[in-house]
Amino acid sequence: MSDLQKLLGYREPIFNASMAGAAGGAMAAAVSAAGGVGMIGVSPAPTAEWIKAQASHVSEIDTPWGVGFMGWALEADLSPLESFLEYGPSLVSISFGDVTRAAALAHEAGVLTAMQVGNAADLERALQDDIDIVIARGGEGGGHGRNESGTLPLLQLACAQTQKPVIAAGGIGTAAGIAAVLAAGAEAAWIGTRFLSTKEASGHENLKAAVRASGLDDTVYTRAFDIAQQLPWAPEFGGRALANDFSNRYADDLVSLEATEELRERMVRARAEADVALAPVYAGQAVEFVQREETCAEVLAELGGFRRILSDAAQRFA
Amino acid sequence: MSDLQKLLGYREPIFNASMAGAAGGAMAAAVSAAGGVGMIGVSPAPTAEWIKAQASHVSEIDTPWGVGFMGWALEADLSPLESFLEYGPSLVSISFGDVTRAAALAHEAGVLTAMQVGNAADLERALQDDIDIVIARGGEGGGHGRNESGTLPLLQLACAQTQKPVIAAGGIGTAAGIAAVLAAGAEAAWIGTRFLSTKEASGHENLKAAVRASGLDDTVYTRAFDIAQQLPWAPEFGGRALANDFSNRYADDLVSLEATEELRERMVRARAEADVALAPVYAGQAVEFVQREETCAEVLAELGGFRRILSDAAQRFA
Repeated sequence: MSDLQKLLGYREPIFNASMAGAAGGAMAAAVSAAGGVGMIGVSPAPTAEWIKAQASHVSEIDTPWGVGFMGWALEADLSPLESFLEYGPSLVSISFGDVTRAAALAHEAGVLTAMQVGNAADLERALQDDIDIVIARGGEGGGHGRNESGTLPLLQLACAQTQKPVIAAGGIGTAAGIAAVLAAGAEAAWIGTRFLSTKEASGHENLKAAVRASGLDDTVYTRAFDIAQQLPWAPEFGGRALANDFSNRYADDLVSLEATEELRERMVRARAEADVALAPVYAGQAVEFVQREETCAEVLAELGGFRRILSDAAQRFA
Repeated sequence: MSDLQKLLGYREPIFNASMAGAAGGAMAAAVSAAGGVGMIGVSPAPTAEWIKAQASHVSEIDTPWGVGFMGWALEADLSPLESFLEYGPSLVSISFGDVTRAAALAHEAGVLTAMQVGNAADLERALQDDIDIVIARGGEGGGHGRNESGTLPLLQLACAQTQKPVIAAGGIGTAAGIAAVLAAGAEAAWIGTRFLSTKEASGHENLKAAVRASGLDDTVYTRAFDIAQQLPWAPEFGGRALANDFSNRYADDLVSLEATEELRERMVRARAEADVALAPVYAGQAVEFVQREETCAEVLAELGGFRRILSDAAQRFA
């Protein structure tokens, strides 16, 4: 059992990534009930109703759960964090922005803080910031983040540089992948894409079907979707999504992409209608390992196979 | 002990990458003598003298060693492979190009073949080709290759899809990194960058010093160096090198890069003079883990710590 496991009290060293739009209270509750740590992903400026609805899934459970925020959204408005803290999470993840005030607030409430890092400079900052847990996330991962370092080298560096618990993220989709990151020194795996097609994932069936139909070679890292939607993401945080008609046209040709109001509206419509040829379907390279609709409990049960894999490898190379 | 280990008869599941320009006979002999599998990297159109000089280091040793070629160079001329086969390698690695004739020749000589794959399509081809060993190489790696998949997701896919032995490459620079890829199912690790500053590495001291001074955030993947040198690499195989003045100017602005004869000559000169501000210094993200000059034996001794790390992880998560 790892130190983080003792501290938080979970059974499986598996966190679902706090994917805004896909990881709501239903996923978090299901992952926590299955022994992992369920995370709720919060979009910028969530409504009070949405917060209440998500929290209703987890507020009564007696296993650990958490909430993930975009740092730049909390910089503008701390109230979504304040609201969630009232429901008693074990963990708050804050990435992509200045975490100072948000981390202080979480700590006042006795809640642990985590932060994603995507390169060596991020890691150095996280080790200085008031952050309890480092999430080392390689560019293989889906959704927003850096595309600079692979999970493996970043993880080796993070584990060598800190005594803080390190969670590995990016490209982990199988029990073998979990065995790998735990062997490298991670205390747990942070898994997004593998949960995208679960029964408990939020999101239109079109998106889930696109995820199931895609493989390792089918994702693209680009800022094109953010530019088109005029979203205030900092330029160093592009996103990995399924390649589609829109990204095929613009991912390598951002200079031709005009951020018009008309395009923004088309993109809003495409997202509402789950038109996967235009709207982004955020997913990482582990999309290869998503082949059917499953429950979160089924995913956890399969991923739990990492124990046997680790022990076999240790014996084989003893 | 893994199947590949039994087949080839090495002690440490560690191959040095066949880095043309850095991994000559001296490195291969040192790595093999230390229990790993030493590989010689062959540039396009090597001279007969160079081949003879490199082979002299390994032809008499009784541990396994191998040679790595660029497939596109062998397509044009098989004779460097024919020459090396006379010295009795255990393994020939052929990547980036059509391997049909070269693999047949190696097999006629009773020598195993290996091939680097960088995405799912490459992997599928390698499984159909006459290739005995798959090298799953993520974009974290140094030198030429694809920058599409991270080592971790590619490795999970390769190990799931084939019974052929899989060797992992890209971003592995520590004993913990080796533990990770073995846990994920690799039979061995293919390590380049970590050997770049060894005493036995070929290459000017300027290059070795630049490698030692660089970290995780200091590499760049680009075709700019190949365009400037007018090298016949296929466009899908760019290279990861240390960022320098030249790549800072052109890596993201290939359209401004004019492949003039004058530039080609400047680049040839820069390589000859080891002017690291202009010439490419190929290195992967594991450059983070190169901090001093070492012998290959010292590197192998440290990396051999993977056994303890694997066994600790298996116990910790039992």
